[in-house]
Amino acid sequence: MVDTLSASEPLEADEVHTPLDLEPKPRTAAIDVDWLGRDLLGTWAERRLAARAKAANPDYQRIPNQTMAEHRARTFGQLQLLVDDGAVLVAFPKELGGGDDHGGNIAGFEELVLADPSLQIKSGVQYGLFGAAVLHLGTTYHHETFLPPIMRFDVPGAFAMTETGHGSDVASIGTTATYDVGAEEFVIHTPFRGAWKDYLGNAAVDGIAAVVFAKLVTQGVDHGVHAFYVDIRDPETGEFLPGIGGEDDGFKGGLNGIDNGRLHFDHVRVPRLNLLNRYGDVAADGTYSSPIESPGRRFFTMLGTLVQGRVSLDGASAVASKAALAIAIRYGSERRQFNAASDVEEEVLLDYRRHQKRLFTRVAETYAMSYAHERLLTEFDGVFSGRTDTPEAREDLETLAAGLKSLSTWAALDTLQEAREACGGAGFLAENRLTLLRADMDIYATFEGDNTVLLQLVGKRLLGDFAKQFRGASAAHLAQFAAKEFAGRAAAQVGLHQVAQDVRDLGQPAPASRALRTTAVQRELLTDRVETMVAEIAGRLRHVPRGDAAKTAKAFNNVQNELIEAARAWAELQQWKALTEAVERMTGETARVMTWVRDLFALTLLERHLAWYLANGRLSGTRAKVVTSTIERLLVKIRPHALDLVAAFGLEDEHLRAPIASGAEGLRQAEAMAYYEEQRAAGTLPTPEKQAKRG
Amino acid sequence: MVDTLSASEPLEADEVHTPLDLEPKPRTAAIDVDWLGRDLLGTWAERRLAARAKAANPDYQRIPNQTMAEHRARTFGQLQLLVDDGAVLVAFPKELGGGDDHGGNIAGFEELVLADPSLQIKSGVQYGLFGAAVLHLGTTYHHETFLPPIMRFDVPGAFAMTETGHGSDVASIGTTATYDVGAEEFVIHTPFRGAWKDYLGNAAVDGIAAVVFAKLVTQGVDHGVHAFYVDIRDPETGEFLPGIGGEDDGFKGGLNGIDNGRLHFDHVRVPRLNLLNRYGDVAADGTYSSPIESPGRRFFTMLGTLVQGRVSLDGASAVASKAALAIAIRYGSERRQFNAASDVEEEVLLDYRRHQKRLFTRVAETYAMSYAHERLLTEFDGVFSGRTDTPEAREDLETLAAGLKSLSTWAALDTLQEAREACGGAGFLAENRLTLLRADMDIYATFEGDNTVLLQLVGKRLLGDFAKQFRGASAAHLAQFAAKEFAGRAAAQVGLHQVAQDVRDLGQPAPASRALRTTAVQRELLTDRVETMVAEIAGRLRHVPRGDAAKTAKAFNNVQNELIEAARAWAELQQWKALTEAVERMTGETARVMTWVRDLFALTLLERHLAWYLANGRLSGTRAKVVTSTIERLLVKIRPHALDLVAAFGLEDEHLRAPIASGAEGLRQAEAMAYYEEQRAAGTLPTPEKQAKRG
Repeated sequence: MVDTLSASEPLEADEVHTPLDLEPKPRTAAIDVDWLGRDLLGTWAERRLAARAKAANPDYQRIPNQTMAEHRARTFGQLQLLVDDGAVLVAFPKELGGGDDHGGNIAGFEELVLADPSLQIKSGVQYGLFGAAVLHLGTTYHHETFLPPIMRFDVPGAFAMTETGHGSDVASIGTTATYDVGAEEFVIHTPFRGAWKDYLGNAAVDGIAAVVFAKLVTQGVDHGVHAFYVDIRDPETGEFLPGIGGEDDGFKGGLNGIDNGRLHFDHVRVPRLNLLNRYGDVAADGTYSSPIESPGRRFFTMLGTLVQGRVSLDGASAVASKAALAIAIRYGSERRQFNAASDVEEEVLLDYRRHQKRLFTRVAETYAMSYAHERLLTEFDGVFSGRTDTPEAREDLETLAAGLKSLSTWAALDTLQEAREACGGAGFLAENRLTLLRADMDIYATFEGDNTVLLQLVGKRLLGDFAKQFRGASAAHLAQFAAKEFAGRAAAQVGLHQVAQDVRDLGQPAPASRALRTTAVQRELLTDRVETMVAEIAGRLRHVPRGDAAKTAKAFNNVQNELIEAARAWAELQQWKALTEAVERMTGETARVMTWVRDLFALTLLERHLAWYLANGRLSGTRAKVVTSTIERLLVKIRPHALDLVAAFGLEDEHLRAPIASGAEGLRQAEAMAYYEEQRAAGTLPTPEKQAKRG
Repeated sequence: MVDTLSASEPLEADEVHTPLDLEPKPRTAAIDVDWLGRDLLGTWAERRLAARAKAANPDYQRIPNQTMAEHRARTFGQLQLLVDDGAVLVAFPKELGGGDDHGGNIAGFEELVLADPSLQIKSGVQYGLFGAAVLHLGTTYHHETFLPPIMRFDVPGAFAMTETGHGSDVASIGTTATYDVGAEEFVIHTPFRGAWKDYLGNAAVDGIAAVVFAKLVTQGVDHGVHAFYVDIRDPETGEFLPGIGGEDDGFKGGLNGIDNGRLHFDHVRVPRLNLLNRYGDVAADGTYSSPIESPGRRFFTMLGTLVQGRVSLDGASAVASKAALAIAIRYGSERRQFNAASDVEEEVLLDYRRHQKRLFTRVAETYAMSYAHERLLTEFDGVFSGRTDTPEAREDLETLAAGLKSLSTWAALDTLQEAREACGGAGFLAENRLTLLRADMDIYATFEGDNTVLLQLVGKRLLGDFAKQFRGASAAHLAQFAAKEFAGRAAAQVGLHQVAQDVRDLGQPAPASRALRTTAVQRELLTDRVETMVAEIAGRLRHVPRGDAAKTAKAFNNVQNELIEAARAWAELQQWKALTEAVERMTGETARVMTWVRDLFALTLLERHLAWYLANGRLSGTRAKVVTSTIERLLVKIRPHALDLVAAFGLEDEHLRAPIASGAEGLRQAEAMAYYEEQRAAGTLPTPEKQAKRG
């Protein structure tokens, strides 16, 4: 049992405490902000710093309250600026003048969210989706023919995958590309309204071409989804080419610098060579061929080349969370509230326990997101550079990207909102950026894969890995499942003894608190939860008859909520591991404080899922209460280092651009205090009524 | 123990189930949508329907993607329209042509959120704050002099309470109003930048006058915050009057139809009679008098007259949540995803268990919010009509308003976001309203009192009520606290026996599920949690020395998180009670389904706080798992009634104005299916590659 693991860390002087002992100690030593800042920047630090220099340039920054048309025009111009700066070549092949630096490319683009998320996403559409599809799904002809004007932004393009009738479900799209052997052309066609391409950046106004995903049909056989390079507008007039039509998606909840729109095709003909044919080709005579035999695997391989979108959203979410926390914590460290104006020893907002819990738990989460993203980006770079490009590595990369992207895009929204509320009315003003950033990033939760759908993919992967353990041993397999399930129930009973033991522990929370702050106990608790949840779901699915699609679907529906929770638990574990590995590299006071941050992250996860740990006998009621009281103690320990922790995010005033985070509030408070001091000294301060009555 | 309460409800036929038995039954009977809809409209149904008729009128509706200036002008014009329609008189005195209908007035304004939240809040500023301050803080002279032009909107005004340096902390404002006995005038003055009035609607452009809150100083004594009627702009030129200056708060995260701004005063003189003198007056010779002796009570009495702002935000949040859920559930009942296009027996999104959990739990919460709001509005009307106007009733009203407003404004944001994500990319488009509504309502969480601050007020009231039980018995009082605390620990031990018993119950979840669905068990579990939490906090505070302000502040800070959670638990209990009382009035199939909705709400609360119930021995691990499995079963039961449940919200297409909720998606799906049917019939559907290989 986890609860009985002996703690290996020495007892700290402040370990034995009463609830009133939660005083922050004066900060005796400081963390090494410069070192920590460099460490957070990671492998592609130079790319990130270069991008941050751009984000600090007003030409790249959003102007609030522009009309949609003005904002679109500005973002378009910024894309051209990026080209002029040579910033867009990084990921493209060396032979085309590129840098072949896949990780560095993503790292740089992520930071552009500091300038304007519309800029990040518009360049993501052009280079990460449209250009990347030509690069990764096309072959030499396509690279040589189409990429140079794409890279120069001479040909803005749309990535025409999603359809009105099918969002994240790409396999079900309705658009067809039927091979006409006589003309040696594909005929791209939209058969009904639901098959219109929708929500496409660059489609409403700017797009000259598009990579269109359609079901490839040749010789009467439907070979599934493939990508085609299609010219859509006359570059001179901006008019749609014959057979092509579309609509503007119009004003959106955010990202209004991007011209999202719809496209439809009425028997539009493109040359046979416009099929991006890396994973599937059609010969002049109509014969289909592919290096990947299974249509299912082929489809997922093609889609897998587009994982970089998810990777970059994960990184951008970490960057946005850093900005939100830097703004709210700087403000909270100056803002005073609910104190007599005449009292000079007032507390600032950040001294309030609630404020600490709201913000510091999210600082810890953001550090975890940031280090987990670095691991994801490293895996991505390994696969896309070819160094570690195996089917297994690709599968692992996709699973990690799906899990981390889901958690971090939701976390960014949550953090931006909490920071907004923590700044009160000032947080609502556009000038302080939190509301507009949140509005822009809202869509991150459902684009490049709906988070709920992505977590189900992760969950199915976990189930698959679990099942692999029993492959080929069908009878043993069932027995194992059953044993596992029994083990789960047994654990609940074992928990009884533990609870009984803990009753004797009452009043001795220190050993429990210490145990909960060890790496081994945290790892055990977080890992055990993932494994147990997956085993339980597998157990619930074991009676489903093989090959019965309807019953399988129904059974999966009945465990859908649990499966998503298991996937979330797995992704949280990955974040915890990445943060722990990072902290283990640290030394001195930085290590000491960052260990508290890591502990706060772990304990926040335990608190979030405390019901599970209790219901499954992993933690006793007494221990559970220690989780919460230990969090409170960590908040107090972290308080003196809060400004340092956000300073290490490395964001300057030009990145935050929030008047409330500029020190103005501190100056106002000082002015107010000086006024009262002066009045008091001059004897001109009116007597409060209460005091006048007494006197 | 709750766990041993015997269940009084009869066993239903589907009560004994395996996990795979979660099939929705065909809907045998329907709820009475018309009756339920009328019931939801409540006491002031006619006022609500009249306001909804306005909200259905395009002249009152927001046009997305207007510039801030255009939006402001449009909202200003809509305020004039309201005057022309006679809609604004309802709350004002009969002798001035008003309706003296306080509840009805609020009910009507709440519904305007369906037209545009800017319209609701701009009229709230003019009538609920500026006009209401004159009405409730002024006396006959002010009513006769100032109210008629305010009611006609000839004098738009600002409610100048909040200052840059102090948000929710009104007692600490810096603005002063010093009585000049020679001139018989008050001198309104802003002594430093932090004392600028800020975030005031009508201040940036439209305001001709303002009710300014300032510390009243006369004869050298500071009598605390009072309100003054101050002209601020020349109505002809729109220029600030001498001594008055200001700034525009500019673009905001939402509510851009309102011209929020800042005001400051440089020794601005107003006649003595401009003091709104209901609760405090200054005679010509400078003598201060007040019907309320205690400055503290006087301050809270004055602020208490402004509770209607909180009441109306609570109601508007329920209205907005209804709209969000109606949109998402209508769409989810048509939208298909992740199904082979050729399969005509596809499921819609709403058949997915995750989708059900996301939306149905919020439907239940919205019903609870709506019925709880009706209770709040009734209390409000009782106090403001004078029928039940006692200090105790006012205090109860303020506590209930603070608790419910906090929960419902947060819930509206949560529901709008969940609905947005449940609608995917379509939910992000402005035309489908969810994102813009959410952006507007963001500020509801922190204006008219920051939710976190309001919950602390509720928490302190709960502690005060708890302490009253022991008043005057100081020794007994401590003993009681100690006993209570011990009782809490004892309960954890008693829990052991319960857990032991439940191990024997394994595999028999039906009785537990039935028990959890009884009113008595739910009431006991929800009430016990509030009482226990409050007693525990009181116990933790009992060692604080009386009269030591610093130690008291520190001790409160150490229990701040717990206090807020206790307040939340209390407000949730009020919601549950209101919903339960409403359901007890219902009959037939409506009662049956609405009981499931009530149970879903109760169980969602239990699931949210499951860790507490487990850690404190109120529920065993086994029972805890039954909470979650019972929720799953309720989702399946409610599924066939989902459209009816949102139809009872009574919102028409003109209120929702969301293309995705219009039936268009269903038509698109039908068109796609017909296309595939036709192709299949004609034999022109290409053969899938997989099938072609087999064949």
